[in-house]
Order: sequence, then C-alpha cells, then structure tokens
Amino acid sequence: MILIDGVQASAVAVTDRGLQYGDGVFETCAVRDRRIEYWPEHVARLQAGCERLGFPAPHADLLRAEAERVLEDVEGRAVLKIIVTRGSGGRGYRPPRMPEPRRILSVYPFPEYPPRFATQGVVLHACRTAAVEHPALVGIKHLNRLPQVLARAEWDHPGIPEGLMCDTDGRPVEGTQSNLFVVQDGVLHTPDLSRVGVAGIIRARVLAMAGDLGLPYRIENLPPNVLDRVDEVFVCNSVIGIWPVIALESRRWPVGPLTRQLQTALEAERSCRVG
Amino acid sequence: MILIDGVQASAVAVTDRGLQYGDGVFETCAVRDRRIEYWPEHVARLQAGCERLGFPAPHADLLRAEAERVLEDVEGRAVLKIIVTRGSGGRGYRPPRMPEPRRILSVYPFPEYPPRFATQGVVLHACRTAAVEHPALVGIKHLNRLPQVLARAEWDHPGIPEGLMCDTDGRPVEGTQSNLFVVQDGVLHTPDLSRVGVAGIIRARVLAMAGDLGLPYRIENLPPNVLDRVDEVFVCNSVIGIWPVIALESRRWPVGPLTRQLQTALEAERSCRVG
Repeated sequence: MILIDGVQASAVAVTDRGLQYGDGVFETCAVRDRRIEYWPEHVARLQAGCERLGFPAPHADLLRAEAERVLEDVEGRAVLKIIVTRGSGGRGYRPPRMPEPRRILSVYPFPEYPPRFATQGVVLHACRTAAVEHPALVGIKHLNRLPQVLARAEWDHPGIPEGLMCDTDGRPVEGTQSNLFVVQDGVLHTPDLSRVGVAGIIRARVLAMAGDLGLPYRIENLPPNVLDRVDEVFVCNSVIGIWPVIALESRRWPVGPLTRQLQTALEAERSCRVG
Repeated sequence: MILIDGVQASAVAVTDRGLQYGDGVFETCAVRDRRIEYWPEHVARLQAGCERLGFPAPHADLLRAEAERVLEDVEGRAVLKIIVTRGSGGRGYRPPRMPEPRRILSVYPFPEYPPRFATQGVVLHACRTAAVEHPALVGIKHLNRLPQVLARAEWDHPGIPEGLMCDTDGRPVEGTQSNLFVVQDGVLHTPDLSRVGVAGIIRARVLAMAGDLGLPYRIENLPPNVLDRVDEVFVCNSVIGIWPVIALESRRWPVGPLTRQLQTALEAERSCRVG
C-alpha cells in the first residue's frame, strides 16, 4: 500500500516539486511486526530536514497514524519509506509562499541480505563518484541523491553490497547508503558532518552507545589515507544495522572487537527501541 | 496537457526514480506559435545528460512527435518542459539493469516578465546558497535542484527576478536559472564548466555569436571579486534571452554595448532557430 496525503494511491502529481527539483526529504525505517525502529529519531530528522528546506513538517501524530495504516497488513520485517516534499506550486525554482507539503508513505520488503554480511563482514567497492559537499544540504536526508545513484551504478557484484564514497579531496565520508566508522588505536572515529554526509540515525545511536560503554570516540574529518592505518572498519544504517568491513581494494581488516561490541549492543537496542 | 510516455496523464508513479532520487534530466524550451526555439540543441543536451547518467535517451523523433502533440492547442508564446527520468525500478539507489526511462512533457504559460528587464536591465540578488560543485553532475541539467530552490527562496522582491550564485569559494558561477557573462576591457568572460554550472543552450549561442561577431571571449573560472572590476554583466537562458544586469548589492553597471550587441543578435537568431 502507498498513502499519499493519507489517501491510497500509486501516483503523484507531475507538478510535485519532489519530482521537478528533488525538493523534499525522506526516511527509511526498519519495521518489525508493524513496529517501527527508532521512530522518534526518524520523525525528528524528517522534521529537521523540512525545517532546513524551509517548509512546514507534517505533525508527528499524523505521520504516525498514516504509518500505522500503511503497515496494517505487514507481517514480520519490512521497510517503511516516508517521503515529504514541498508539494506542488511555486514558479520555477521559487517555492510557493504557502507550501502544502506532500506525504508519501510506502512499504517495501525487508532486503534479504546474506546473514554473513553482519557476521563475517562485507567487502566495499571504492566509489569513484564523490559525495556532494554543500553547506545547506549537509546532514539532512534530502531527495537530491544523484551522487549516490551514480556511485551505486559503478559496480554490479552480488557479493559487494556497499561502496565507500569520498569527498572531492579523497577523504572517506560514507557509504552510498550508510555511515562510516573506523577504529584506530582503540578510538572510534566517524566523519563529522560539517561539509558532507547524512546524519544517520544509527550513526547517532552508535555514538551514544560508545558513550554508554565508555569507548573513546572522535567526530572529525578523516584524512584521505586513513584506511591504510586503521584496525577496524564498519558501516551502519537503519536497515542493515552494523556491517563489519573486511576489505576495500587491497586493504584487509579483521572483524574487530569494538565493531562486535557495538553491533551486539545495537542489535539488543534496536529490537527494544520500537514504537 | 501533460504527456507521460506518450499518454495524457497528470500523475507519475511514486516509484519513479525522478521523485525518489532526482534521477533524471530536464529541458525548458521557449515556444513561439508551436515552434520550439533551439530544438536540436535542447535534444542534444537532454541526450548528453541521459548518457552521463547512464541510461538510454529517448529518440529525438519520439520526443519531437510528443512535443508536437503536447503543443497542439498552444497559441503564441509558451514554455515546453521535458523531463526524462530513469523510470521506475532498481533496488534502492542501484539503477535497474534494463532501465525504461520515462518521458514527461508539459506546457506552461510563458512568464510575463516586464519588458524593461530586457531593455533597461535587472537587479540581481546576491545568493548566500552556494552552487553545487560535483564533477559527475557539472554541465548537465539534472533534477537535483535543491541548491537552486534554496537560493531562489532567499528573496521575495518582485523587482528582482534573478539571483547570482557563487561556488563555495565565492567565485561567481551562474544565476539560479541562467548563465552569467561579464565584460572586462572589451573581452567577454563566462565561467567554465569544469566543476560547477549548467551548460546553457543560450550560453553556447552567445559564445558562438561572439565568435561570429569577432568579439574576443574567454571561458574560465571567474575570481571571487571579479564583479568589482567589470564593465558589463548579463545573464541569459532559453526563456528570457539576455537580461543586462545593472545592480548587485552596492555595485552598478550600465547596459553596455557588447551586451546590447549580443542581445540584438540573439533576438534575431532565436526567432529564426525554431523547429
């Protein structure tokens, strides 16, 4: 089922600014038995994204009610995607003065990744396509996703589920659909979001759990060659949780102890943090 | 009338990658009495954009036939917008192996700008929102237009029809919907498209006409403070033609002789280059 502004539908107005300009934001939420993992966090990010783009965010209660409707026949695991666009109207790029944002909720099957991706780790493709650096867009999960599309089109190997994207200076930034963490000398590092990257829900949870567990961490730009000298690497997002990274080009890493510790903590938490 | 893949419709599948990711390209063409200005140039750029994004472009004859249908009841001046997306399908960002691109043709009223914008020139807003620099996206007219939307949202003065966007280093790049030219010591300059900007149809025509008229020109990155020392400034696109720029913040320029010469040549040409 797809709900557009609360009405069951499968098509959206051609005039929608999401189609015309990518003028909107989205969330991808993991669902378990109709319960949505990290729901408050997803709603908060969606609302922050609308605010950044300058249009009113849908009320959390409305999104909640529509999410329940769209999930009512879903069993087991699934993925809920919520798109909120600025709606139709305006003149060219110029937004309408009184925008009527459009809500599009849809459900997808949970992707059937091999369990070994989580247990034994994954190989990453080294993307040539750079991540976009833009001060007004950094952090939010907006609909301008062509760099991710072009990066994901670079490889077609079923055993390689994710690719590493760097900024235009070659600094590792994120996966096409995940955030990046590395461990060096016992310290957890993840890129900051001052210029580039998405403020992932799981990224924030990993940092919070690192704090709870007393693991030292730093949020900072990673140098271009950082991967040559780190001990552990992992990627994370709301659907996959944490995947250890074991190889990228000629580099190899073990599935390390901090990665495993955080993965265990996250899996315990995400099955509880449902709403 | 709106035609989607040749069928009259007003809504597009929610699954369309144009909505989901901005995964597509578009053209905005000036129309006069059902004849489209610079049609071969628009089709060529559209096709180059599809090729850059890695999906097959619609055949020029098909687009032509659909454009004629969508324009059949149009009188006088109008704007034809053509969107081509990668269509539906794929898994997440990953494009489908055999994409079925979607064609969306629609007609809009020709914008009623005051004639003085062309004759006496315009004031530009100085946009704080930077243009996106991305090597894979530069030049093509793709659907990831949030920077333009955010830039255009910065001001709301009916007498200011366009804004100047700079790159993140403060170099003047383009208008929100137009290309930028400056004249300094009798030489025409426009930013190159190595890192940022759209390869405008009228930009290319202006350069060609400058060649024909024996006007010296240079295509190069403009320094950040170039506007402090230029003699003429203008912006151009397929709908407005050429607008002289007479003011930006505290700077003032006359409507200069090269601007007028190119504007006259362009207006003569565009009424002939219809197909």
